[in-house]
Amino acid sequence: MTAVRVAGVGLTHFGQIPERTGRDLFAEASQLAFEDASVPREDVAQLNYGNFMGALAEHQGHQAPLMAEAAGLDCPATRYEEACASAGVAVREAVKTVRSGEADVVAVGGMERMTNLGTAGATEGLAIAADDLFEVRAGMTFPGAYALMASAYFDEYGGSREDLAHVASKNHGNAVENEYAQYQRAVSVEKAMDAPPVAEPLYLFDCAPITDGAAALVLVSDDYAEANDLDAPVGIVGSGQGTDKMALQDRDDLAWTPATEQAAEMAYADAAIEADDVELAEVHDCFTIAEVLALESLGLYEPGHAIGAARRGETAADGDLPVNLSGGLKAKGHPVGATGASQVVEMTRLLRGDHPNSDAVDDARLGITHNAGGTVASAVVHVLEVLA
Amino acid sequence: MTAVRVAGVGLTHFGQIPERTGRDLFAEASQLAFEDASVPREDVAQLNYGNFMGALAEHQGHQAPLMAEAAGLDCPATRYEEACASAGVAVREAVKTVRSGEADVVAVGGMERMTNLGTAGATEGLAIAADDLFEVRAGMTFPGAYALMASAYFDEYGGSREDLAHVASKNHGNAVENEYAQYQRAVSVEKAMDAPPVAEPLYLFDCAPITDGAAALVLVSDDYAEANDLDAPVGIVGSGQGTDKMALQDRDDLAWTPATEQAAEMAYADAAIEADDVELAEVHDCFTIAEVLALESLGLYEPGHAIGAARRGETAADGDLPVNLSGGLKAKGHPVGATGASQVVEMTRLLRGDHPNSDAVDDARLGITHNAGGTVASAVVHVLEVLA
Repeated sequence: MTAVRVAGVGLTHFGQIPERTGRDLFAEASQLAFEDASVPREDVAQLNYGNFMGALAEHQGHQAPLMAEAAGLDCPATRYEEACASAGVAVREAVKTVRSGEADVVAVGGMERMTNLGTAGATEGLAIAADDLFEVRAGMTFPGAYALMASAYFDEYGGSREDLAHVASKNHGNAVENEYAQYQRAVSVEKAMDAPPVAEPLYLFDCAPITDGAAALVLVSDDYAEANDLDAPVGIVGSGQGTDKMALQDRDDLAWTPATEQAAEMAYADAAIEADDVELAEVHDCFTIAEVLALESLGLYEPGHAIGAARRGETAADGDLPVNLSGGLKAKGHPVGATGASQVVEMTRLLRGDHPNSDAVDDARLGITHNAGGTVASAVVHVLEVLA
Repeated sequence: MTAVRVAGVGLTHFGQIPERTGRDLFAEASQLAFEDASVPREDVAQLNYGNFMGALAEHQGHQAPLMAEAAGLDCPATRYEEACASAGVAVREAVKTVRSGEADVVAVGGMERMTNLGTAGATEGLAIAADDLFEVRAGMTFPGAYALMASAYFDEYGGSREDLAHVASKNHGNAVENEYAQYQRAVSVEKAMDAPPVAEPLYLFDCAPITDGAAALVLVSDDYAEANDLDAPVGIVGSGQGTDKMALQDRDDLAWTPATEQAAEMAYADAAIEADDVELAEVHDCFTIAEVLALESLGLYEPGHAIGAARRGETAADGDLPVNLSGGLKAKGHPVGATGASQVVEMTRLLRGDHPNSDAVDDARLGITHNAGGTVASAVVHVLEVLA
């Protein structure tokens, strides 16, 4: 089996950019990825593209051919949709395609426009990631769903709003130097605690923002990288995916996310690593409690122990296990269909040393990305490693 | 490389069934496929699922986990969206997954609900398969788009409404014995000619209907089939995909569909066959002219020569190259996200001899399926063969 290398990465600025079309955003991200990769577009065999709510935000389905055109590609193009894990599954299938030997070069990416819908429209759009018949019609939105998960966690293991405020403060701090981030500003624990409530026990700074943006990657086979003398030190050495019951009411335990556990077990086995080998993680913190749940279901913390990780400084840039050095979805922003690819972009930069936060972790050689859909009915985990 | 076999197939009735939910439809199709396959659900490594407009028709994105649950599966599940070729790409990626050795059993399928939207709502929903900025806002709908393609074809090569009426009449005739078909009734050429216009030169019987329905397949590796002594004589021996410019205005020639040509070339090369080897075809006749365009771009007819194929009887059940023996999208119905999988269901039955129209083609050993998205900005071709 061929190893897969990340030859190039590209991002647009994440933020409120309602005046730009989806194709415009993706064109920018992919242009940057191809410049970074030094790979000619005619070598690309396939484009895998993630988008979630384009039917609502742009009245545009069938986006893959449009995005191939925007990226200057003349190859088969496929859209993946898995709610907020759309680009995660697009990356995963691209990794499988390269590994199988079917293609040497696959372009991957994702895009989401959200702010043009306004806050209410985007919230309603996001709700289609939940079970319409049994959750949404009962009035559930995602802040409410994650509030239920946070309450269940607090009931089962303890913890407090202040623990979550430490997660928010850490991730905002990490984004300060990230020029692509929606919020490049520090937020103190006190400020997070003083924020207005959204859905008890989640407050404003517990929630990722609504964001426009795009991300792109050029993945290549080991052989292609060698034959073309590419500077592509980072490989994707493990991939896993998990799926859970869609509706919260059908789950056994709201403080545990089996889809993440399955995805992590599959990815670690694939990479022949243990959870203990993970040095860096970009996890799906659409809400602060989601970071806590992820760290536990990923096997990086025992159940009930991740809630204090940020407070204790363990997941800080100078901690034992830096988490969301990009700023995370919380501060970097969360254009849902792009997020899974953007996590791989950030991790690649962190590992190869050209991320603004690379200096804090310059010995790190192995990191994971964790992308989730809905209330983690879907999850995708990738293991990235600096290869020789 | 392992060969891929179709172990089981399942379909709901196609038609106007607005009272049934998407999960209900997919549960039925997948139940039938598993019964047909005699494969236990716990052996399934992955579900690939196609759906196009669920965000509009059911206010439901993130359908893959829901459909895994409906199918009784506990495995990673991914949604593919490629307009009317959504299930085609889902099949294609499943074939790649089995071939690569990554999984022995993959479930595939698709579902669409449309009739609950009403005709105007479904037409508007379908329009998101075209370029919203440069086609839909100018007033284009799909009957209009295919009318432009038909007009271009007539200009370039000649042909008439009556030639197209022969396509409609043939496909309706093929559906008479197909219990899953939306319209199990013959339509004479005269009746098709007398129908009201939809978009000149296309009339009512030139257009596929709006349809609800689901389709499912169980694909297995050769090794798995042998080890488990499965009765699965039909293999998927070739797969190809093509992508073209999204908007008609950006194409060089409206009477030629390069995405189909690319997909066919890739699939034929993959199967090590020539176009001349094709004995049966299920092609994407969302409009009668689409069948004509498909036959030419698939290399089964020279440019300008397929327009008279139905009139001459060549593509009839007793012709040299029977096309759309299922009834096609035209008469069997076109639940867009299910269509690509349902074509593989029909072709499998035709080749293994348990289709109502199998008797007409009982020597046939090789057939292709052709699934297209939008105005053929996307196309997927599969080659199916009776294996030893």
